[in-house]
Amino acid sequence: MEKLFAQTPKPPYYAVLFTSKIMNASGAYDSLADKMLQLVSEQDGFLGYEAARDHLGITISYWKDLDAIKKWKNQIAHQKAQERGKKEFYEAYKVRIVKVLNDYEFFNSL
Amino acid sequence: MEKLFAQTPKPPYYAVLFTSKIMNASGAYDSLADKMLQLVSEQDGFLGYEAARDHLGITISYWKDLDAIKKWKNQIAHQKAQERGKKEFYEAYKVRIVKVLNDYEFFNSL
Repeated sequence: MEKLFAQTPKPPYYAVLFTSKIMNASGAYDSLADKMLQLVSEQDGFLGYEAARDHLGITISYWKDLDAIKKWKNQIAHQKAQERGKKEFYEAYKVRIVKVLNDYEFFNSL
Repeated sequence: MEKLFAQTPKPPYYAVLFTSKIMNASGAYDSLADKMLQLVSEQDGFLGYEAARDHLGITISYWKDLDAIKKWKNQIAHQKAQERGKKEFYEAYKVRIVKVLNDYEFFNSL
């Protein structure tokens, strides 16, 4: 249960909301996404992520501060993946950089 | 294409990140979710939403300000739905209130 959600610290912290529409779901996309997930997990200031996909994909990554987000955006292998994503995989995407002000959770005891 | 993502204004604006694990997917859940979606669309300050579900559900609702979020949280029918959700539908959920600082988007021209 504990690993159901990203184990984020007490606010404030930061997040990147990445909403996307894939053009072509493929093994190549999954493979690149897996690589990026591995890579992002090693970044300083990365706190965790949550993701779901049906008609839209939503990935939320959590970060210690805005500087860590900026460094990840400019990380070389990630830059190349972003370029490849624009050419091959994404019909469209939207990125929102946010500050988490408050959070709370519920776990059913049934 | 335009309606793929929530049509949010220039930042700053606010959002509620709702990450959930459903205990029992059911027609009753879908029906209540549809009602809440109808109701939230009528709230002052509501800007739109994006949602996806596979093993986790992620719903992001966008809002003009924190006061609009607070009013929606306390709206009577929504309060009742939250109570029912805790008893009948959710194994767990996490809510994060965020301020959107910056955003950008990409549309493929291929």
